[in-house]
Amino acid sequence: MIVRDYKDVQQDEVDAEGAAGVKIRWIIRQDDGAPLFAMREFELAPGGHTPFHAHEWEHEVFILEGEGVVVSAAGEHELRPGTAVLVPPGEEHNFRNAGSGPLRFLCLVPHGAK
Amino acid sequence: MIVRDYKDVQQDEVDAEGAAGVKIRWIIRQDDGAPLFAMREFELAPGGHTPFHAHEWEHEVFILEGEGVVVSAAGEHELRPGTAVLVPPGEEHNFRNAGSGPLRFLCLVPHGAK
Repeated sequence: MIVRDYKDVQQDEVDAEGAAGVKIRWIIRQDDGAPLFAMREFELAPGGHTPFHAHEWEHEVFILEGEGVVVSAAGEHELRPGTAVLVPPGEEHNFRNAGSGPLRFLCLVPHGAK
Repeated sequence: MIVRDYKDVQQDEVDAEGAAGVKIRWIIRQDDGAPLFAMREFELAPGGHTPFHAHEWEHEVFILEGEGVVVSAAGEHELRPGTAVLVPPGEEHNFRNAGSGPLRFLCLVPHGAK
């Protein structure tokens, strides 16, 4: 059993094309012995956003703190603490901080996702 | 894309041997189109606990609210908001509310888990 506070996990800048003001922690990862999927925490600064992109793996997201939007080709949805999002494989999306404080969320993905 | 507030998801009592004061919401499930794993939210009343048991699937847990402990054969670990837990397949465990308010956590499992 592994028990850890997410704040004790190293936080890294996400240096991807189309990303701005995004930090990530890999809270539970494959080399912890997790068989199938990983738990990450994202922190977006005010105005920050992830790339508008699609990929072959899904996201399962839960908003912990802040206000934002998730954008798809079909439009936008508001995000607030307690909002859950399933982004299926292949669907374009991005997450954007629309508030004045940090936007923090969990984002779980199958191993092999970036 | 599916976007929903966890509070809009039906909450059910967990009626399992060894469980007391446990409610569950299946926030993201297989029939939502999630390929591999499901997102559930548990709410344990003060004094409530899940069974002390083991099973072939893993848990990835993130504490949202409250104070508790997770118990394994090796001992106990404290839980507070922001604590993450990986329970690997086959390891005995239970979660217990040790506070005066609800203990709420996300618990993600591969499809096929109960």
